[in-house]
Parts: sequence; structure tokens; C-alpha cells
Amino acid sequence: VPSVPRKKLTTLTFLQQSLTMILEDAVKKATDVRQKVCEWHSPEELKELLDLELRDSGEPEARILERCRDAIRYSVKTTHPHFFNQLYAGLEPYSLVASFITDALKPSLYTYEMSPVFTLMENAVLRKLIQTVGWEEGGDGLFNAGGSMSNMYALNLARYRHFPEIKELGNSAAPRLAVFTSQECHYSISKAAALMGIGTKNVFVVPSDKRGKMIPSALEEQIESVKSEGGVPFMVNATAGTTVLGAFDPIDEIADICEKNKLWLHVDACWGGAVLMSNKHKLLMKGIHRVDSVSWNPHKMLMACLQCSAFLVRDKTHLLQRCHSARASYLFQQDKFYDLSYDTGDKSVQCSRKPDAFKFWLMWKALGTSELEQRVDRALAMARYLADEITKREGFRLVMEPEYANVCFWYIPPSLRDLPDGPEFQEKLHNVAPVVKERMMKKGSMMVGYQPHRGQANFFRMVVISPQVSRQDMDFVLDEIHSLGKDL
Amino acid sequence: VPSVPRKKLTTLTFLQQSLTMILEDAVKKATDVRQKVCEWHSPEELKELLDLELRDSGEPEARILERCRDAIRYSVKTTHPHFFNQLYAGLEPYSLVASFITDALKPSLYTYEMSPVFTLMENAVLRKLIQTVGWEEGGDGLFNAGGSMSNMYALNLARYRHFPEIKELGNSAAPRLAVFTSQECHYSISKAAALMGIGTKNVFVVPSDKRGKMIPSALEEQIESVKSEGGVPFMVNATAGTTVLGAFDPIDEIADICEKNKLWLHVDACWGGAVLMSNKHKLLMKGIHRVDSVSWNPHKMLMACLQCSAFLVRDKTHLLQRCHSARASYLFQQDKFYDLSYDTGDKSVQCSRKPDAFKFWLMWKALGTSELEQRVDRALAMARYLADEITKREGFRLVMEPEYANVCFWYIPPSLRDLPDGPEFQEKLHNVAPVVKERMMKKGSMMVGYQPHRGQANFFRMVVISPQVSRQDMDFVLDEIHSLGKDL
Repeated sequence: VPSVPRKKLTTLTFLQQSLTMILEDAVKKATDVRQKVCEWHSPEELKELLDLELRDSGEPEARILERCRDAIRYSVKTTHPHFFNQLYAGLEPYSLVASFITDALKPSLYTYEMSPVFTLMENAVLRKLIQTVGWEEGGDGLFNAGGSMSNMYALNLARYRHFPEIKELGNSAAPRLAVFTSQECHYSISKAAALMGIGTKNVFVVPSDKRGKMIPSALEEQIESVKSEGGVPFMVNATAGTTVLGAFDPIDEIADICEKNKLWLHVDACWGGAVLMSNKHKLLMKGIHRVDSVSWNPHKMLMACLQCSAFLVRDKTHLLQRCHSARASYLFQQDKFYDLSYDTGDKSVQCSRKPDAFKFWLMWKALGTSELEQRVDRALAMARYLADEITKREGFRLVMEPEYANVCFWYIPPSLRDLPDGPEFQEKLHNVAPVVKERMMKKGSMMVGYQPHRGQANFFRMVVISPQVSRQDMDFVLDEIHSLGKDL
Repeated sequence: VPSVPRKKLTTLTFLQQSLTMILEDAVKKATDVRQKVCEWHSPEELKELLDLELRDSGEPEARILERCRDAIRYSVKTTHPHFFNQLYAGLEPYSLVASFITDALKPSLYTYEMSPVFTLMENAVLRKLIQTVGWEEGGDGLFNAGGSMSNMYALNLARYRHFPEIKELGNSAAPRLAVFTSQECHYSISKAAALMGIGTKNVFVVPSDKRGKMIPSALEEQIESVKSEGGVPFMVNATAGTTVLGAFDPIDEIADICEKNKLWLHVDACWGGAVLMSNKHKLLMKGIHRVDSVSWNPHKMLMACLQCSAFLVRDKTHLLQRCHSARASYLFQQDKFYDLSYDTGDKSVQCSRKPDAFKFWLMWKALGTSELEQRVDRALAMARYLADEITKREGFRLVMEPEYANVCFWYIPPSLRDLPDGPEFQEKLHNVAPVVKERMMKKGSMMVGYQPHRGQANFFRMVVISPQVSRQDMDFVLDEIHSLGKDL
């Protein structure tokens, strides 16, 4: 080895310049309502613009800085006030700072010795969330790489509680297991069932009512029917805040059925969990203190930076540890000099795990519970305002009255307004949203999602989250949709 | 809704101050060899110091800034030149800037319209990695939230290729499936088997030789034995760079066995994949072009910021998509205005997915392939230097000659040096590493891991990664261990 003198650890000037640029372009400009939400290019065009190829020689830092600027320029600005395309939005500065710190320190949550600060912070946040859920005797939990993983953990714990031998012997040693979820649930339930060897056909889809809520009597019927065919029910997944409609399944009634049938009740509250912060709205999740596990993503309505996904479990018998542990001796040595119960790594299916709780902890410290509550109340009031505007305006029609932050509606261009409802009208209406979406993307004025749903024509789904969004922005969305689609 | 004027989108002053502090404390100071690697406190002490409780009221920004400073202060500095505790280390400035940009923009890789830039960058990096692996006809892949997830994907694709009906029907519709892996493999294989309903007892552990490499003849025997007992082999996992010893399984010979038995061959190269960048060392993975899938974490030896984990698959029949897809109509609308093959979200089991490839793409652009190669060569030369020093020094003994960046060794304090080898010596030796580790943590001078392994006394595992590390640092590690342990 050549005796090279210690290299400059980082090119600090480059880092300094980059941070200045990031603050300017990816924070200030990205959140400026006068700027575009996106600068659309087709894949072929964008490939030309970005020069993606990786070569033998490196490039000077000035060129790398330009590349960063371009990456920002051509990316979607999900923190822009007119970005309403997903179940997250807005910029949360405290959470962002926590992300930056995490990136620079590169911690990983295997063991207390590796991540003392973040281990304790995760514990503190989990305790507070568990208290918010209302499990008076406490519980356990973890932050995961996304809500899909949290939902999978629920399935795995539920299965393990019913059939602990599956961990060693696999599903082929067990009867045909059945899980129940509503037709409006997130697709992660079926993805998890596929991955976990349960099988998507053993995910029984319970009908929802017109508001998108699971029908408890239908659940009961399905459980009976599966049992009579030799299946073994082990879990019900209820959704608090469905993806499209923002519907809340009736947890209390479902809990009665689960108690009666001794089934694990999981609530996917990735999107809707935020109502638990609000005294005004938490009744939407009445009965939540009775369930076995909860997925809750503070990166959605509560605006923590991506990703921030909590999985909570009411069990107090180390089920998470017993179900997931592999006891790797190189990480979880038993002859350490501190209390090993602080090593959380073996509760997880992951090995490296990011300290996502820190992002939420820091913003909670900065804002306090009261400001978090106000934000939720404000977002739901804003959704209510938007729904009222839609009702008032010609050419707009609500899919249903919102009870959460999803506002689903059709835009009916003037040419269709006199058509009678029927197949022709529905078919023409179905084609409106995709064209309006294409036009808004190419103009870069805003981003709002649309989808087909339960056989209905494509409709828009507006989602109101950020406290940085105002009534003007709601008005803008409706004006802009009309302006983009009025000739259709 | 009160007609609140648009709030200041971010408190820019706070962000500016935070970034200055992060650059000073979490970058400059954290990587300064004169500073401590960690400032140890017990969980109880640290709870007092951090004031973790989340309250109703928020705190002023000056206080939040102090909290950030404390979080950094009490955290382990994994970028410090004397951090050798895990399979990652060092600070990569380009990758760090890419992380910062990602945090600020909050992209997610469901669809091209949501992440045009990062979708294309991921494609470009995957293509380049596939080329490096040597799959001349191409392949497919994804970046995942860690190597454990990548290994799980391999198991799932292998299972799906053999028994596609399991996706719908579950494992109980299939025979007892068997996977083979060496005794030195990463624990994620068994965690995945547990989660996937395969069962940990159906993970057959193949003996390794003294250097930690899977013994091909033992693999063949095990396959035959499982078959004769009615099990159905479907996959072999070979490891390129085992966690403790840094051993490389003989891929070429294992590939012969897999071809003969029609088994999926996966290579867990999370740690060792970096040798493929080096003309000098890539022979360690001879035969890699023949395998079906590879996990490779550029956040390890190649120093991309956490996490950066590639999963590569040689299949060209959209296996990843077919195996994992759920076709959510609200995300993957079929009436979009661009080429839908750019929507990668349904290939993943995750929903939100971070653009981790960007961190690798940017540093590759900055350094070029040639500098990446030099880094790997330099790290391995440095490991060689350390091994030579250990051989030369009294009181140090190599566990085995390294062929990669893991240097495993015992430190024998003077009091044990005259003891004959035997149970008493081994027992006393076993207690040395934990005490030295405790002392180094409390002093904060460095971090090096230790573990028991295959019935041997606890030994240290040094891992050399960062090009920022010098021969002086290697000498320091040995001097420091002696200084901390010489009275034992």
C-alpha cells in the first residue's frame, strides 16, 4: 500500500455549494407556487437531456453540480403547493433537517451501540403513538421501510400467533389460511399474501358499502363460508383511510366479529391514522384501542419526510422478536456490557434499518401535539371547503361526500353537460380525466390523480394535506381543470 | 376555513442554520480523526441527556437546533476513519448530495410521471450493473430497501419460476420446498424463508470449508438427500463475501450443480459484489455470469450513502413484474399518455420506494469506473497490509488469511501468551474481545466488531472500506487494542 497521506475527507467546497443550490432549487423554488410542479419530457427526450451513461472517467465537480441542478429541474416537485397526486405532499422543514442529519451520519438500527440516540428516539415515538392509539397496557413496534412492509408484518405476526410452527416448517405444514379485507383496501395486503406463501386467493375480499366502508355483516358471512369450505381464518385487515375514497372501516363492529371468531385484527391506518391526533375527528377510528396491530405512516398526512412508517402491535409477549428473530451471533452478541433489550434489530426482517422515527420525533418536538392536531383539522376543513365548491360549481360532481381528506369528483365538460346519463355519457366522461391529466402534466401547472373505480368512469382524486395550501389553491385546482378540459 | 395567507413555506433561516451546523458537526467533525467515534452513555444516562418526551407544545427553533446538535453529538460517527464496526464506512460526498436532494424532493418510484429522472437513472445503473455482472443478453432489476429484501426477492422469483401457482394458492398447494445455502450465509435467507412460508427448517445449511467457502460436493449430497426424503429443491444461495470471514463461495462449481439439478442460483453479493469492479479481484466471483440473480449493495464497499441495494435478475420474461404485480388501477392506469413500461412500481413488493440508485449514479458520474476500481483495489491492499502487520506483531493471531476486506484476528494479552492452547486458554481468550470492545466504546477511540464463530473464541473482525483510511489507521487499531487489553 502506498503511504498516501490522509485524503481530504470531503471536498467541503463542493458540499457547501451543493447545499446552497439544494436550498435554492429543491426547497425555495420547488415550493414556490409561481414555479411549475413538473417540467414534462417523454422518456426519450429526458434520456437525451440527462446523459445517463456511466463511463470510465469521472467528471469535475462543477459538472456534477450541474447534473444535480438538472436532476432537480426535471423532477416532480412533490412539495409544491399544487402537487396533489399522492397521499403525501408539502415540505416539513424539521423533518427535512432530521433526514439530512441521518444521511450524513449513516446510522443503522441494529443495536443500541450502533444507534444509541435513534434507538431511544424510536422507542419514545412508538410509546407516544401507542398511547395515542389507546393501548393502556402498552405494546411494541418498529419503524419500517413503508406501509406495505408494516402490513406484511401484521400478517406475519397474526399467522405466527395462530401457527407458530410455520416459522420453522412453512405453510405446507399448515391448513389453508384465510385473511379478510375490504374491496377498497390497499394492494399491499394481496402482495404480502403472495410473498408470504398464503396466496392471493386466500385473501377474501369483503364488499364495502357506497361510502367505501367494509360491511360487517358481509365479513361475518365470508368468515362462515370460508370455514365451511375448510379454510382457516386468522386475520382481518380493516382500513382507516382507504386509498381512493378515504373511507374508514367500522373498527368497533369489526372488532366484535374478530373477538367472537378469535381473529387477529389489523388496521391499515397508513393514511388515516392522523385522525387520532385530532379530538374532532378521531371518532372515525372508534374502537382502535381494541385491535391487535396498526400500520400508520406519519409521512402521509403528518408530513414527515419520506419514508416514515410505524408498525404498532398490542402484544406484550415479544411476539415481534419471536416471530422475526434469527439471532445472528455477529450482531446480537450475548456478552455485551449493556442491557440487550435495547437492541431492536432482531425484531425486524430487515438488517440495515434507517432511523425514520427521528424525522417524526424532531418535528413533533418543534410543533407539539397541538400543532399536529391543528394541521389535521385544517386539512380536513380545507377538503370540506373544496367539496362545497365542487357542489356549487357547474360541471363538477362529487363522487361522494368526503369524511376525510380525499375529495373525489368528476369534471364534466360543457359538451357533455346536456347528455343524459347512460353508456355514451359514461364512456365520454371516462376519457376526460386522462386527457386533462396529460394536459396538466405537459403544462406543469399542477398534479392531481385520477383512476377508474368500481366500474365508474375515471374521476379525479384530490388529496388535501399540507398546511401550506390555501383556499386559493383549491379554487385554482377547479379553475385549472375547467380551463384544461372545457373543449373536450 | 379561515382565509389564512399562504404561510412561509419553510423557515429558511432555520434550514440555513441547520445545514451549516450539519456540515460542521455531522460532516467535518464527524470525519475528523482527532474526534471521538462515539461518546458512550448508557440508555438511562442518554435518556436524561436527550429529554425524549413529546409534549403538547412545540419548542422554538433555537432549541430544535440544539437538539439536532445533541443528536449528532451522542450518535456513532460511522463516517469516522476509525469506525470499522459494520460492512459500511466512510463519507462519500457525491452520494451524500444525492441523498440531500432526494430528501428535499421526496420522490417515489411508482411511476414515470412521479419520478421521471430517477426512473431513468435507476434503469441506467441497473443496466451498467448487469453489464458488469456479465449477462450479455441483459436482465432486469430494482433497488430495494436493503439486501435482506433483495435476497427475499430472489427466493420469491425462484419459487415463482418453479411453482407460479403459489402466488395465488399459497405454499400449502405446493410440495415441501427446499433452499440451500452455506453455514456462513447471511441470516436474511432464513428470515426470508420464515416470512415467506417456506420455513427455516427447509433452509438446508451446507457445510463450508476452513476458509468459509461452501463445499460443492456437500451441496450435491444435500440436494440428493432432500430429494430422497420427498423435499423439492428450488434454489441455491451462494454468498460472495460472507459477513464474518469475507469468504466467496465457488460460484462456477455451484452453477454446474444448479444447472444439472435445474435449480435457481442466487448470489448474495451484497458485500462482495464490489470485486466485480476490479480487474485484479473479480476472479473471486468467477462464474457470476451464469447465475440467475444477484444482490449487490453499493452502500457497502462502494460507499454509497445508506441504503443503496440492487437486486439483479437475468430473466428477460418480466418475471419480476409477473411475480410481484397487483395491478392497482389507481396507480397503474392503462390509459396513460406515455410508454407504461417505464412504470416500475408494480415490480416491487413496496409501494413507496426511494430512488436509491441516484446516490450511486451521481458518485459513479463523479468518480468514473476507474476510480471505483482503484478504491476497491486500495481497500483490499490495505486489508493485506493489516493482515501482514497482525502476523508480525506479538500477541495478535490471524483467524485466516484474508482474500477480501475482512481481517479476522485474536488479540492475546501478555497474561495468556504462555498458556498452552486448550479449554482454559480458549475460555480466557473468549472473554478478551468483549472487554476490549467495552473499553473502546467508553473511550470512544474506535469501533471494531467481534463475534463468536463456529465454536471459536470471540475474535475481532476488521473491515477495510474507505479510501480515506491510511496505514497509520491500521497501525492505530492494533496499537489501541493492545493498549486497551494488555492488562487482561
